[in-house]
Amino acid sequence: MDKLQYTRDWKKEDIIVNIGETRVGGDHFLLAAGPCAVENSGQMSGITDMLTGSSVKLLRGGAFKPRTSPYSFQGLGKDGLNLLRQTADALKIPLVTEVTDLKHLDKVSQYADVLQIGSRNMASYELLKEVGQQAKPVLLKRGMAATIKEFLYAAEYVANAGNEQLILCERGIRSFDPAFRNILDLNGVALLKHLTPFPVIVDPSHGSGRADAVLPLSLAAAAAGADGVMVEIHPSPKTALSDGEQSLSPEDFRIWMDKLSGLALYLGKTM
Amino acid sequence: MDKLQYTRDWKKEDIIVNIGETRVGGDHFLLAAGPCAVENSGQMSGITDMLTGSSVKLLRGGAFKPRTSPYSFQGLGKDGLNLLRQTADALKIPLVTEVTDLKHLDKVSQYADVLQIGSRNMASYELLKEVGQQAKPVLLKRGMAATIKEFLYAAEYVANAGNEQLILCERGIRSFDPAFRNILDLNGVALLKHLTPFPVIVDPSHGSGRADAVLPLSLAAAAAGADGVMVEIHPSPKTALSDGEQSLSPEDFRIWMDKLSGLALYLGKTM
Amino acid sequence: MDKLQYTRDWKKEDIIVNIGETRVGGDHFLLAAGPCAVENSGQMSGITDMLTGSSVKLLRGGAFKPRTSPYSFQGLGKDGLNLLRQTADALKIPLVTEVTDLKHLDKVSQYADVLQIGSRNMASYELLKEVGQQAKPVLLKRGMAATIKEFLYAAEYVANAGNEQLILCERGIRSFDPAFRNILDLNGVALLKHLTPFPVIVDPSHGSGRADAVLPLSLAAAAAGADGVMVEIHPSPKTALSDGEQSLSPEDFRIWMDKLSGLALYLGKTM
Amino acid sequence: MDKLQYTRDWKKEDIIVNIGETRVGGDHFLLAAGPCAVENSGQMSGITDMLTGSSVKLLRGGAFKPRTSPYSFQGLGKDGLNLLRQTADALKIPLVTEVTDLKHLDKVSQYADVLQIGSRNMASYELLKEVGQQAKPVLLKRGMAATIKEFLYAAEYVANAGNEQLILCERGIRSFDPAFRNILDLNGVALLKHLTPFPVIVDPSHGSGRADAVLPLSLAAAAAGADGVMVEIHPSPKTALSDGEQSLSPEDFRIWMDKLSGLALYLGKTM
Repeated sequence: MDKLQYTRDWKKEDIIVNIGETRVGGDHFLLAAGPCAVENSGQMSGITDMLTGSSVKLLRGGAFKPRTSPYSFQGLGKDGLNLLRQTADALKIPLVTEVTDLKHLDKVSQYADVLQIGSRNMASYELLKEVGQQAKPVLLKRGMAATIKEFLYAAEYVANAGNEQLILCERGIRSFDPAFRNILDLNGVALLKHLTPFPVIVDPSHGSGRADAVLPLSLAAAAAGADGVMVEIHPSPKTALSDGEQSLSPEDFRIWMDKLSGLALYLGKTM
Repeated sequence: MDKLQYTRDWKKEDIIVNIGETRVGGDHFLLAAGPCAVENSGQMSGITDMLTGSSVKLLRGGAFKPRTSPYSFQGLGKDGLNLLRQTADALKIPLVTEVTDLKHLDKVSQYADVLQIGSRNMASYELLKEVGQQAKPVLLKRGMAATIKEFLYAAEYVANAGNEQLILCERGIRSFDPAFRNILDLNGVALLKHLTPFPVIVDPSHGSGRADAVLPLSLAAAAAGADGVMVEIHPSPKTALSDGEQSLSPEDFRIWMDKLSGLALYLGKTM
Repeated sequence: MDKLQYTRDWKKEDIIVNIGETRVGGDHFLLAAGPCAVENSGQMSGITDMLTGSSVKLLRGGAFKPRTSPYSFQGLGKDGLNLLRQTADALKIPLVTEVTDLKHLDKVSQYADVLQIGSRNMASYELLKEVGQQAKPVLLKRGMAATIKEFLYAAEYVANAGNEQLILCERGIRSFDPAFRNILDLNGVALLKHLTPFPVIVDPSHGSGRADAVLPLSLAAAAAGADGVMVEIHPSPKTALSDGEQSLSPEDFRIWMDKLSGLALYLGKTM
Repeated sequence: MDKLQYTRDWKKEDIIVNIGETRVGGDHFLLAAGPCAVENSGQMSGITDMLTGSSVKLLRGGAFKPRTSPYSFQGLGKDGLNLLRQTADALKIPLVTEVTDLKHLDKVSQYADVLQIGSRNMASYELLKEVGQQAKPVLLKRGMAATIKEFLYAAEYVANAGNEQLILCERGIRSFDPAFRNILDLNGVALLKHLTPFPVIVDPSHGSGRADAVLPLSLAAAAAGADGVMVEIHPSPKTALSDGEQSLSPEDFRIWMDKLSGLALYLGKTM
């Protein structure tokens, strides 16, 4: 197999990704949060309440949702982008949202500050090459059964196309144990931090599928050396149209933020 | 999770997919073969020699190649489509080739008789919806770590968009054993045949990554109830630009065809 | 890692294992069947009815049952061995049953013709060394997540202790897909037949966990080159104390035997 | 499946395991360390130097080594037990070592303070029942591909036999990524802490197979809620007879101990 190019041999120091005033990588520890999918303005106003005054420096949320079943809620599309943008502006933090395909790239680019490539598209190489030519940071999620090496090659499709403002995201891999939707791979995080200068964040919501595992796994990710954590939150998880069982409620979110911020500071990070 | 719609409850009898004069499903047993990637006219002329007079009823081959590394050979693109079309015409059999993204759909549609969606794109739902609106059969490969249920939902994205001329292809899944690139999942084939009326074929080349495993696994697939087998062949595997180690040589190809045809006939299939 | 010793380089020809008049390996195709666990004499009399006049040449059945839960039925112990022995004698075929630990080795050896080492004990090396010193054939099942290489090393613990009358059994491995209890690894069977002269049989009952998958997977195993198939049967699967959902009923058993015998003969095997 | 009995419903509070003056569980954070295998007195004197004055409160080390290959170093046996005992006595800390089978139980019990059941024997139920009748604490390691539920059932074999002085140990599970020997499952640790009152420790040496991953994964385990960490150390990893690539050198061990102790104190644990 070809040699990886964008390694610590290429750049020894951590790359800092700049999203407006938000910094990712190096000494910065990123908290990112938001709903799985935008549902309506009431929900987003609940999200605004949850995030106002918090240490969260990046809003996440889905408008175009890749769903396993064609009969599940597929996201609000352009209306969702609008609601996300308004929420981010109200909170004065940048927005990351997913580009699911080339067709929607222009539209998503108009609204988003960071372009997310989801797990299902980690190996959609044409899409990677295109976002590699955009003037916006990219957040690349690891495929559900991608090896670390395949993940790094996918990152090089983006970097090689010219975009080095790239954040990698570990979000859990497939395992044999039905106890969890996915298993968070912190071995992988340790190895990524060793091999690549790009910032590496963790998504323990998809990485477990259980809200009660999000806090311990977030702390574990920070301790393992991750550059940030991205979680799903919802003002009322039980009524969520998608991923309710893995979304933090307002109360759990506050506890999560306090504990995780505390640990990040102990570890010498800035927020 | 939503209920699957396109099951044996929807259509009890096997669906027959028609590709020119080639039939897939029911009593028909499909042999499909061709190179991993088109390399040049010399190679394709070797392929023509191998397939002339054989029982192979579908030519496979890649012009746009999704490769793990951005530095690997990425396929000949449009020139490759031309060479594939000429080869298929010379052999008087139809052609299946991969559509890797929306951008190339029109171009590929001009040349191909069957549109292949590769493993990496099994969950590229926008692409599935688009090929679901084409007037050509679709060959959908299972994702590397997709469950059978997820595979069937992906198929429903195509069917639900209007295209019921759909062939499913099991091509190996990820396992913990480094002895093989992938493990062929014949449990999955048995289950698919039980659940869905769409034809199910098997790709033992990707399903093992080893040329010496292709024959036993092809026979196993036929015995397990598959509706056909698709393999990679090469006039000179050792010089192949991709997947040489899993491609059948001319001699191995002849043995494979004889043994597999014999077994298919024993099992009551027509070729 | 050390080199494997008991390979095709050591003995090019297939090893034939002799169990009374039953032969395993080479041109012989073994059908083995019996209940998961011995329950009572009524059940075993039903088993006798099912096997009388059949092509089954080895009775399987468990007296000491290693069960995941300590609160599940653990087998009849010595009474079970008695019932198994009587059934085998009535049928005039040999008996294989599991030795779960050193403590029971002598007792099991008094009753069994073949000593089975189960999946859970594939890496219980002291037990392997002990059965390697017995004057009885050994049937070694692959561990649930053992690589083929680890499986072969385990076999060498037995052979190296002096016992070359050894049968290997593939019985399914762990995968990410909850559709099946295990995934039958026929890639592994093909590789084992390539590497080792010891006979290789397949257990599609544990290899799938579903009675409706046993026939297609048995046929697939034979086609892939296995030297035999071992299945679980029960006169009344719905009332079985263990593994009922994967046991063949009398009617399914007859169909299975007919189809599998037919295919084995087609493949040039003797029964 | 039967209901688990030894859950938080049975005992809400953490169980404290007492090993001489060492406490495991509750607010106590355990550091355990030692060589993979005892090799000779020179090595053990190096180990003594490394552990003298450290916060390590439990010596680990193998005298009977279950090795994948029968041709690998199998441990020093009884001589190894002697050397381990002398080292533990010199350091005035208790000793945990593995019981690989019933045959060696008495001998190991004479030397060890804690009886370890290794991954390969997690489902050796007769052995579990026997150690469940001993008057010594038991350290039970999770099988390489055991689900959390299967792990808890195995623990109940011990508890149900009368021994509630039980420590569970997560040590990595099989995955598809060859980058690591195993993947440490911290999802599993979070779930175990939720479900069971028994203390849960983590072995990042086997959980990664790489010395450079031991520190980040140890910190992650502590942050995820583990009750301790057990690592392999060696005075000269490059000359180790087994597991050298995952053993901490004297220098790495000191850094590990400082960082991990610091984090444990931050998390409110006592050492």
